[in-house]
Amino acid sequence: VGECRETGDLTEDLATNAASPESIRHSIRNGEWRRGTGEIGAGFVQANLVALPAEMALAFLTFCWRNSRACPLLDVTDVGSSRPLLAAPSADLRTDLPRYRVYEKGRIVAEPESVVQQWSESHVGFLLGCSFTFEAALLEAGIRLRHIEEGKVVSMFLTNWPCRPSPPFGGQLVVSMRPIPRDKVRLAHEISARFPFAHGAPVHVGNPEQLGIKDLSRPDYGDPVSVRPNEEPVFWACGVTGQLAAAQVKSGVVIGHYPGHMFITDWPSRALTSHRLPADWERLGG
Amino acid sequence: VGECRETGDLTEDLATNAASPESIRHSIRNGEWRRGTGEIGAGFVQANLVALPAEMALAFLTFCWRNSRACPLLDVTDVGSSRPLLAAPSADLRTDLPRYRVYEKGRIVAEPESVVQQWSESHVGFLLGCSFTFEAALLEAGIRLRHIEEGKVVSMFLTNWPCRPSPPFGGQLVVSMRPIPRDKVRLAHEISARFPFAHGAPVHVGNPEQLGIKDLSRPDYGDPVSVRPNEEPVFWACGVTGQLAAAQVKSGVVIGHYPGHMFITDWPSRALTSHRLPADWERLGG
Repeated sequence: VGECRETGDLTEDLATNAASPESIRHSIRNGEWRRGTGEIGAGFVQANLVALPAEMALAFLTFCWRNSRACPLLDVTDVGSSRPLLAAPSADLRTDLPRYRVYEKGRIVAEPESVVQQWSESHVGFLLGCSFTFEAALLEAGIRLRHIEEGKVVSMFLTNWPCRPSPPFGGQLVVSMRPIPRDKVRLAHEISARFPFAHGAPVHVGNPEQLGIKDLSRPDYGDPVSVRPNEEPVFWACGVTGQLAAAQVKSGVVIGHYPGHMFITDWPSRALTSHRLPADWERLGG
Repeated sequence: VGECRETGDLTEDLATNAASPESIRHSIRNGEWRRGTGEIGAGFVQANLVALPAEMALAFLTFCWRNSRACPLLDVTDVGSSRPLLAAPSADLRTDLPRYRVYEKGRIVAEPESVVQQWSESHVGFLLGCSFTFEAALLEAGIRLRHIEEGKVVSMFLTNWPCRPSPPFGGQLVVSMRPIPRDKVRLAHEISARFPFAHGAPVHVGNPEQLGIKDLSRPDYGDPVSVRPNEEPVFWACGVTGQLAAAQVKSGVVIGHYPGHMFITDWPSRALTSHRLPADWERLGG
């Protein structure tokens, strides 16, 4: 994508997926794409970002490992580095997302388009899998997703299921809910299970009370969507779990992506199915 | 397994797999089983142990993640804890392996039957997948393994493939080699690929020179085995990679398992196939 191109052409390229992950990130870095990434980069694994000071990084990495449905680890940087060596070696996590959220003492203090200033020599960056990957696979299999059809953000709920703690990180599991026709629930389960690095199979189908959810029409995050009589509410572990856990830290600067504004990796989504760990994507050395 | 039982009965129970992982670990802890674990606990995932001081744990965890074929992470403890919360919450990693190796400044300084004295308040323990899991699956599928038939330790070689570094951890990939009849290579590949947490698919088939191996009859670790005219040498990433990387650390006490004397987890091997991450084994919270 040359810099002399018209924005119109570029937007078209991005939206029709003619662009490579590298060129999409280039456009984001240059401020040519500032919206959410749901519309672009289809076919490539997208990721949640969390970055925090090195002294908390071991505990957070352990938290992710212990709660891998919600926080499936895709990559982790060296201390002070913003380069994801496995997921996109040419990328810079400080500039290659369209928008960020910066937290201090559990509060949002900025929502900038770059975190070059905030990312210190002690920051460690984590990329965690994201539901866009399995949603694309569900759509391809003919399973309609209401929040997408209605142009809404998926409904998300804070459950009463405790995460496995790794102090100081803890809290409760957050889930996303998608209404699925009863005769497609099994298929939706099978398809999403093929993507353990994008939250995998649902954690629950059917009864919101099992998760401590009182009212499906009042999500804690995102927009409400209706569940029709022939449908079941299907609940998947959600990456917001990790954002919440990280943001609640009392000291230091924590950086996350702005909701829906994810990092686009070099990995084709198809490559990240069951048998393959991200680190297997390229042959070791040689 | 009661303590009043005769050792003969106990050995029989262990060897015929009538024992639960918990009772096997109990026998090991009490000094009733001091040999290698290859003969016992079949059907349960076994693991390599590495424990090192907290200040190196983030870098080592990152090293494992970047080299997950060789060092597939199964569990990590809290700082100072020797309890593997996911893999076996009732176990103690300081006592539940039959034998250990203790390293200081890259040298073996002890090979004790317990590391209660060496495991400090700053130690973090890592459990990494082990080839026993896929070997059992290969045998079940009728693929014979020469080193087992001949009562030998599998041949292992230091390759010239560099690991992805996570300073101070680095070094080269170590592989294990098993001769497989040419018409079974594809099956062996497919079966082992189902166990990404036990090294997964082979990293190479056929040409030792591709890995920088000059002489198959002179392994760097383990015993030599012959490769017959109708067979291919098949190479898998090996857990010794992680032991070597950890042992070379210049400061602090590093603890590993004694070769072949592994940790036996609570996880049935069948549960740890492709779709399932270890952390999914038990339902989150609730």
